[in-house]
Amino acid sequence: MFLRAVLRNLQAKRKVIVGGFYVSEKGFSRSFSNHVMGKNGSMDNTTQLKVLSLRECSYLDYHGYHSARHHVCEEKSSSVEESLDPFSLVADELSAVGNRLRAMVVSEVPKLASAAEYFFKMGVEGKRFRPTVLLLMASALNAPVVQGATEGVFHGFSKELRARQQSIAEITEMIHVASLLHDDVLDDAEKRRGVGSLNFVMGNKVSVLAGDFLLSRACVALASLKNTEVVTLLATVVEHLVTGETMQMTTTLEKRCSMEYYLQKTFYKTASLISNSCQAIALLADQSAQVSCLAYDYGKNLGLAFQLIDDVLDFTGTSLSLGKGSLSDIRQGIITAPILFAMEEFPQLDDIINKGFDDPSNVDIALHYLGKSQGIQRTRELASEHANRAADAINSLPESHDEDVLISRRALVILTERVIKRTK
Amino acid sequence: MFLRAVLRNLQAKRKVIVGGFYVSEKGFSRSFSNHVMGKNGSMDNTTQLKVLSLRECSYLDYHGYHSARHHVCEEKSSSVEESLDPFSLVADELSAVGNRLRAMVVSEVPKLASAAEYFFKMGVEGKRFRPTVLLLMASALNAPVVQGATEGVFHGFSKELRARQQSIAEITEMIHVASLLHDDVLDDAEKRRGVGSLNFVMGNKVSVLAGDFLLSRACVALASLKNTEVVTLLATVVEHLVTGETMQMTTTLEKRCSMEYYLQKTFYKTASLISNSCQAIALLADQSAQVSCLAYDYGKNLGLAFQLIDDVLDFTGTSLSLGKGSLSDIRQGIITAPILFAMEEFPQLDDIINKGFDDPSNVDIALHYLGKSQGIQRTRELASEHANRAADAINSLPESHDEDVLISRRALVILTERVIKRTK
Repeated sequence: MFLRAVLRNLQAKRKVIVGGFYVSEKGFSRSFSNHVMGKNGSMDNTTQLKVLSLRECSYLDYHGYHSARHHVCEEKSSSVEESLDPFSLVADELSAVGNRLRAMVVSEVPKLASAAEYFFKMGVEGKRFRPTVLLLMASALNAPVVQGATEGVFHGFSKELRARQQSIAEITEMIHVASLLHDDVLDDAEKRRGVGSLNFVMGNKVSVLAGDFLLSRACVALASLKNTEVVTLLATVVEHLVTGETMQMTTTLEKRCSMEYYLQKTFYKTASLISNSCQAIALLADQSAQVSCLAYDYGKNLGLAFQLIDDVLDFTGTSLSLGKGSLSDIRQGIITAPILFAMEEFPQLDDIINKGFDDPSNVDIALHYLGKSQGIQRTRELASEHANRAADAINSLPESHDEDVLISRRALVILTERVIKRTK
Repeated sequence: MFLRAVLRNLQAKRKVIVGGFYVSEKGFSRSFSNHVMGKNGSMDNTTQLKVLSLRECSYLDYHGYHSARHHVCEEKSSSVEESLDPFSLVADELSAVGNRLRAMVVSEVPKLASAAEYFFKMGVEGKRFRPTVLLLMASALNAPVVQGATEGVFHGFSKELRARQQSIAEITEMIHVASLLHDDVLDDAEKRRGVGSLNFVMGNKVSVLAGDFLLSRACVALASLKNTEVVTLLATVVEHLVTGETMQMTTTLEKRCSMEYYLQKTFYKTASLISNSCQAIALLADQSAQVSCLAYDYGKNLGLAFQLIDDVLDFTGTSLSLGKGSLSDIRQGIITAPILFAMEEFPQLDDIINKGFDDPSNVDIALHYLGKSQGIQRTRELASEHANRAADAINSLPESHDEDVLISRRALVILTERVIKRTK
């Protein structure tokens, strides 16, 4: 219901480009059913390839039309993306989630007002990526209206379920920011994404406390959902965040130079939160084990793709040139995918890594080899592979003809593309 | 069952003093039933006052024999306490709990071995006070054997319940140590109880991480109990610990000098953990709301008494003289009960507190007024009041004739006395 309202707003404001001409999104959706599916519901591949928009990719059985889908999707993506913005789709809800989070933090512990302020500085995280994914996942898994259920009863259930799923989005954001706050203490980071880190401004005391506070609020909110499976999933996430951070602290050269170790660490530090919370969204909706796994797979692969690109951007920044990023990882001696791939071509890097990066000239030498290697490109390719796997998970969800469900699934696929293309 | 085994060990080693002559504890217990209860089960007050040992106090209806009980308890306490040591009663189980905790921390995250080492240095905490209380509470609330249940079935259930209650003891210890580790970061404390604080030895990085790790393990263990009420109770504790720490950071003179504010903070920082975990023990055993509340009241009042004495010892140390303690609170500007009581007699202290304690001469002036006041004595009296309330809660539990239950209840009462008498 809420997505339809958003959609109406979108329709009032703009048109959607499909196959080179403008139609209203709602209008296209209707004409699509008649045009592609035919009267008996069978599909004509030629027609399909001609008129298929991004959104409608999910109507297809994923495995049968894999290559065709990818071809069409790539051709149309840039124009359609302008119209279907995943963040706009859940803007109202995101705003409500944000308000609730702000109220939870500010009202009960005035002393932590400064932490709350940091928490809500948009510069820290840009858009609310995780809650957006989770709200879209909630809509993407929306069960069809139960036959025979009265509108009132179903609506009540649906509203309650949505509130519980929103709660998962809030909990996830709290856990995420708590880990940022504690990571800031750990890394002694002076700056995070251009916004003064809290521990730089306020000292370690407030950072640790604010992180603990957010974690405790997350625990209380989690407990109030009264779903032990969901509690276990998100408790495990907190453990993974710590394990990931611990793995990153390793001083063993063998582990620091292992791609397998790096990917495991990346899963723990970045992908576990979003994958487990996506699964929690599915569990709350009483989805099957298979659907819950697909939700988890989406989150896991999106998270890995996100971090791989993050690791590229640490070297390139917004430009495509090496050394334009903040280089914060390598300067801290954290070896990420681009360097790991470069090492396969230039084993000399092993020696540099062993010497450490306290000496800035060692950073320059590493960048020199990285520039000569396929490290950046192979990292991007690996990120794309994970992004595709995330999209595959969405496209493998049980068929649905519900308009809101399909829009949300499409938005989730668009996010996998955005993650790869982002420059900041 | 396990208590009986411990009891057998005790019997083999020593005798119990009762009414001025030695009898074996088991022997006394049997003769007590015949002697005091009479053939028809009625009591003779005179006989009872003559031979009543500490352990048997709990046979009495608390309200009817309140003053008599106190009189006899005080008379006999020193000699009987030597024999009934609360810590020995659960020594084997405590050792198992400790081993499990050690295994959980060391085996899965080798990097945190140093944190584990800190975690298990007995010097940090002395005896495992909290797990001891919780295991004794578990025995004290033990339900009578269900009529008609086969030994096997009941024993299986009882064993599983005990394992879940042990888990609460482990979780509580993890939350407690996590808060110590984070408090060390917060306070930048160089030493804690003579053992080098972890952050002093290893830096803030490991302290924060080790605390987070313990918290996350606690969350996972908590979730695995699959009892949402218990999850809520202990999640609330984590929030209280943070709230208490935040309250302690207040810079408002009015709040820092308010007894009400101080007691609320003390509840959050110290008493919430033990009170809520005592209640969790009761909830797992499916006890009534009334019994759960009594368990909570015991923990709350024991925790408050413990902290009030801690605040006294910060001034006096092991001796009775002022200034022999570490004075760590007042040096950090933390105003505790002894000073708050002293302020009622010497309002001049207000001005000193306002000036702060960065200047050591202000500490001396505060000690001067404290020495002239009843501050220390009144704090001890308040602690005793809470200790008595804790004992009252135990003595208000539903009547039981089970030997293990009664020994455990007596041990819990002895702990309330030990808390008041302790000098370190």
